[in-house]
Amino acid sequence: MLNFSSDYTNGAHPEVLRRLIETNDEVLTTYGSDIYTESAKAKIRTSCGCPDADIYFLAGGTQTNLTVISGMLGLCGAVVAADTGHIALHEAGAIEYTGHKVLTVPHRGGKITAEALTACLRGFYADENHTHMPYPGMVYISHPTEYGTLYSRDELKALHAICRAHEIPLYVDGARLGYGLASHGSDLSLAELAANCDAFYIGGTKVGALCGEAVVFPRGNAPRHFFTMIKQHGALLAKGRLIGVQFDALFTDDLYLRISCHAIDCAETLKAILREKGYRFFMETPTNQQFVVLENAQMAKLGEQVAFSYWEPFDETHTVVRFATSWSTTEADLEALRALL
Amino acid sequence: MLNFSSDYTNGAHPEVLRRLIETNDEVLTTYGSDIYTESAKAKIRTSCGCPDADIYFLAGGTQTNLTVISGMLGLCGAVVAADTGHIALHEAGAIEYTGHKVLTVPHRGGKITAEALTACLRGFYADENHTHMPYPGMVYISHPTEYGTLYSRDELKALHAICRAHEIPLYVDGARLGYGLASHGSDLSLAELAANCDAFYIGGTKVGALCGEAVVFPRGNAPRHFFTMIKQHGALLAKGRLIGVQFDALFTDDLYLRISCHAIDCAETLKAILREKGYRFFMETPTNQQFVVLENAQMAKLGEQVAFSYWEPFDETHTVVRFATSWSTTEADLEALRALL
Amino acid sequence: MLNFSSDYTNGAHPEVLRRLIETNDEVLTTYGSDIYTESAKAKIRTSCGCPDADIYFLAGGTQTNLTVISGMLGLCGAVVAADTGHIALHEAGAIEYTGHKVLTVPHRGGKITAEALTACLRGFYADENHTHMPYPGMVYISHPTEYGTLYSRDELKALHAICRAHEIPLYVDGARLGYGLASHGSDLSLAELAANCDAFYIGGTKVGALCGEAVVFPRGNAPRHFFTMIKQHGALLAKGRLIGVQFDALFTDDLYLRISCHAIDCAETLKAILREKGYRFFMETPTNQQFVVLENAQMAKLGEQVAFSYWEPFDETHTVVRFATSWSTTEADLEALRALL
Amino acid sequence: MLNFSSDYTNGAHPEVLRRLIETNDEVLTTYGSDIYTESAKAKIRTSCGCPDADIYFLAGGTQTNLTVISGMLGLCGAVVAADTGHIALHEAGAIEYTGHKVLTVPHRGGKITAEALTACLRGFYADENHTHMPYPGMVYISHPTEYGTLYSRDELKALHAICRAHEIPLYVDGARLGYGLASHGSDLSLAELAANCDAFYIGGTKVGALCGEAVVFPRGNAPRHFFTMIKQHGALLAKGRLIGVQFDALFTDDLYLRISCHAIDCAETLKAILREKGYRFFMETPTNQQFVVLENAQMAKLGEQVAFSYWEPFDETHTVVRFATSWSTTEADLEALRALL
Repeated sequence: MLNFSSDYTNGAHPEVLRRLIETNDEVLTTYGSDIYTESAKAKIRTSCGCPDADIYFLAGGTQTNLTVISGMLGLCGAVVAADTGHIALHEAGAIEYTGHKVLTVPHRGGKITAEALTACLRGFYADENHTHMPYPGMVYISHPTEYGTLYSRDELKALHAICRAHEIPLYVDGARLGYGLASHGSDLSLAELAANCDAFYIGGTKVGALCGEAVVFPRGNAPRHFFTMIKQHGALLAKGRLIGVQFDALFTDDLYLRISCHAIDCAETLKAILREKGYRFFMETPTNQQFVVLENAQMAKLGEQVAFSYWEPFDETHTVVRFATSWSTTEADLEALRALL
Repeated sequence: MLNFSSDYTNGAHPEVLRRLIETNDEVLTTYGSDIYTESAKAKIRTSCGCPDADIYFLAGGTQTNLTVISGMLGLCGAVVAADTGHIALHEAGAIEYTGHKVLTVPHRGGKITAEALTACLRGFYADENHTHMPYPGMVYISHPTEYGTLYSRDELKALHAICRAHEIPLYVDGARLGYGLASHGSDLSLAELAANCDAFYIGGTKVGALCGEAVVFPRGNAPRHFFTMIKQHGALLAKGRLIGVQFDALFTDDLYLRISCHAIDCAETLKAILREKGYRFFMETPTNQQFVVLENAQMAKLGEQVAFSYWEPFDETHTVVRFATSWSTTEADLEALRALL
Repeated sequence: MLNFSSDYTNGAHPEVLRRLIETNDEVLTTYGSDIYTESAKAKIRTSCGCPDADIYFLAGGTQTNLTVISGMLGLCGAVVAADTGHIALHEAGAIEYTGHKVLTVPHRGGKITAEALTACLRGFYADENHTHMPYPGMVYISHPTEYGTLYSRDELKALHAICRAHEIPLYVDGARLGYGLASHGSDLSLAELAANCDAFYIGGTKVGALCGEAVVFPRGNAPRHFFTMIKQHGALLAKGRLIGVQFDALFTDDLYLRISCHAIDCAETLKAILREKGYRFFMETPTNQQFVVLENAQMAKLGEQVAFSYWEPFDETHTVVRFATSWSTTEADLEALRALL
Repeated sequence: MLNFSSDYTNGAHPEVLRRLIETNDEVLTTYGSDIYTESAKAKIRTSCGCPDADIYFLAGGTQTNLTVISGMLGLCGAVVAADTGHIALHEAGAIEYTGHKVLTVPHRGGKITAEALTACLRGFYADENHTHMPYPGMVYISHPTEYGTLYSRDELKALHAICRAHEIPLYVDGARLGYGLASHGSDLSLAELAANCDAFYIGGTKVGALCGEAVVFPRGNAPRHFFTMIKQHGALLAKGRLIGVQFDALFTDDLYLRISCHAIDCAETLKAILREKGYRFFMETPTNQQFVVLENAQMAKLGEQVAFSYWEPFDETHTVVRFATSWSTTEADLEALRALL
């Protein structure tokens, strides 16, 4: 069966796997104090143009989100997110479990606009009773968003300026960051991203690693005791090498970006195929996820030969589905899909 | 200055105060084990027609909501509320602090409709990824609602039936329950309320007490260890008598209902005055809160002579304000208001 | 039955009750913004010699402890307490519910010694793995302690110096503070207490109020957003006047100290009676709680005529019980006890 | 440098690594729904003699402990542990962060005795005020313990009987379970362990895996919504295959037990060497961790050539250190150590 269901159905990128194999028999120190973790951090600092960055490696996205958000928020703050944000919908209430409300604002194409953010913050402070309400203590965006869309450099700068004016941090969920950076539609480099937010993570799980996300506090601004918080959330791996070695590989010779570019090239071909075959786009995106509207019977039939993801109902008789490419997508996959559609 | 700002600007109803004075010098046992607390419970059980009810007294509304909701919800459940619900907006994230998401559904006149609740629950279970989402583990409604509106008996039964079908409890926030029961627009008795939900509280703070709310689990269905949970939330008063004596007074000779009826009579007069003076209703309600739209300059001027509550902006030049009556409103207050408007 | 069971079996001190009655019909603003609450704060600031103190009123001791401790601790910190501390034993895990460990050190007479505190802090920082452990983020003591004992001025200064050296706050639980200040064995004034800790509360519930504790941050050092945290914990009373009026009365004409002195005088007489009747002291204390060891049959017999508190088992055949005096103890009570023993 | 510092300084066992490599390019379903995860569960059910067991894979020990404990405990319960228990000391307050107190009882050789557990539970229920205290809602033991000691079958049965009598679950932390099962001093099989507790985990991280622990609820008794709780705690890996494949390898052809036996053989040799060289044992254990007392200067000197773990101070001039063997210890390592000492 052809597979376009998601970007985490394969194991590790061969180069990443090779480094895990090569280092397997080495005796290394634990809990992320090993030389490969240190090396990975140094390389990421260079790639981000942030020599003072604090960097931590965690195993997965929800874990990263809940640890960073609860660590950065004040005790009674809420995190502002788009109503389509991953933390608002699909993380099983993980943020709330740490004691914090997710305050949602209406999305536009999966993004928070400067207008919507300003309205949310102004509305809060204008309310006479705002001390009876959870105050907006930080802002969460995902880049690419859950809909595969991207913030432009200007959009990001505008959001960051609003955050700075309110003295609250801006945090960027980069579960698929590579695919965003590699997109033809992106005008944002990794260094520019780092300069225009207060924390972000570089997703590994969906971009070539077996597991792992790299949290970056660009200006050495990790919350106090952040290491202990990671442990407290059960997010500290005894064999920290597992993630350190993988990110060391991903940030050697631009592997992270190279494999992301491949996925984007595949996505461009995918879009062309879908367009040429007359498929109706729900959202045509500049990254590795494409959303099309299928008639329900057609969806069932197609589903017998190609794996895609159910997204959401469109109307009584149609459904939105997602096709995703990744570093592991091949030209053969695309040709087979073209033949099939 | 005339006062229609809220229903908790005065001390205790004279009868409630009298009982506090009369019992003040008695030596009583502590933490709610005293004879007046027991007597109050017995009287409430009778009023509710629930001989097996578990009853607990807490000091305030938010405290009651967070203790009951966290006690009744499963570990990873969310509570469904109207997007205008008090727990969703004005309790400083107290529910989230206990680890639970508030899942909002669009309100109609402050209420949750059976359709909206069904859509929320169906949508959840229909989603393939619902195990990645906080499951709707109970339903919260307020009666009267934050907009002063009321559920009819049939509406309540419909919601309860949906809850039972999903095996989740229905909880009713009765911060102003007296004013709901006394309303001419209500077809619901206290016993019918008790029969058609799984927990509710009878608000004292806004209906004649200095503080205090009576939580009722109508069929002896309090969560296990609920007393310890109350202590754990810092909600257990050493001198439990303070609330016990007040509720004992409120449920003697129908005081709770009698003073609520007085507030409703005043509210009916208030509505007539507002109507007769040509005020524009934002929402004309059957209970003790009335919402009118004022032009902003008019609002400022009126505010010099009468206290009302800012509610929300209406448009650029108008604001919604609230006038509230209570057990302490007098005919003289109303006549003075009539003269003033 | 004679009553020496605890210091919260009676209602309010008559003077406190009188002020509640006198102000009952006044229309006051809500949530602690009323004039009596403001007046009470001003008087407490004067009494403490702390013109810049932040002051908040909460309803009870556990509520105060959990709100202050979770508010002052960092996100992953633990609070150090004596192993006999109220928060360690008798608050139903309320501190842990807010996410924080209670780190206990062995008590001496209910107190934390400078040596024990130093050992705890040194031990933590000396441990190579201390980032894997909850760090000691603040210190909790009670004054008087759970055993009725008192810190001397020097002892308090020593603990505070250790805390300052480690840059962690010292918090004093003053549930029975009045009885400590009034004790003949105390060399500590309210102002000296305020100068030698970072937060404390002045207990009202056990010293003449129906309910209420006054939290003092002596140097305007309340945690940011503390008001919202109070709301979030369900600890904000709509009718803040209830506690404001009571503390305004307690801090008018030194009432708080005067009634505490009365309780201490009674306690001295009680000690004399117990001594004269040959009772064996488990702990003879300088405050209003006295602990004696009773043979179990004797305890049962005595318990028929006088109410005291079970404390803890002493050995197979003896039990430790507590006799407490309070502002409401009378000379007649003491004479009756003398006659009885 | 010789390495006896811990059992997680190496990568994966070669056989485990081989299976990761072999399956790397396969397209597999996500979040633990893949065929290898299913296969691993089936093999573990067989090994445990528990055809109905619920099995979940998590990434690490603290994560597993906090997820299982918060999932199994009631809302206001505490978990009973030895005062040397990992959750009591070295998990950064992770259990408390989920809202639960760790109630400690004095250990004997790292173990909880039936007497100590009975005393703890009896003491709780005998206390008149026990509803003001966190109730002991489950029991946590580690096997092997933090000191490398083991429960006998009879000891485990005795603890389980006490738990059953109090209707609270017994949970076993098996971070090093393999080394316990393989010990010459053990009279407990995996099936017997499963039959005599209510939940346990089979540690992978320290026994041949890169990461991963298998939680077993032997009689299909996983808490309701446990999968969602795992997600909520950030403990759900998108590529569940990472742990599934590893455990599938570990439970093929008894690999888990075989490599554990090797570590135990090495530990026996290690003990013989230490004994023969006249080292003073702090605790001579039947498993893979050995604790010896070194004079501090000797410790510093030895530390230049062999890596061991600092454990705890012994006295002013001596320190307890730990030597650990593992599946990766070689005969050459042992011979080199023998030559060195």
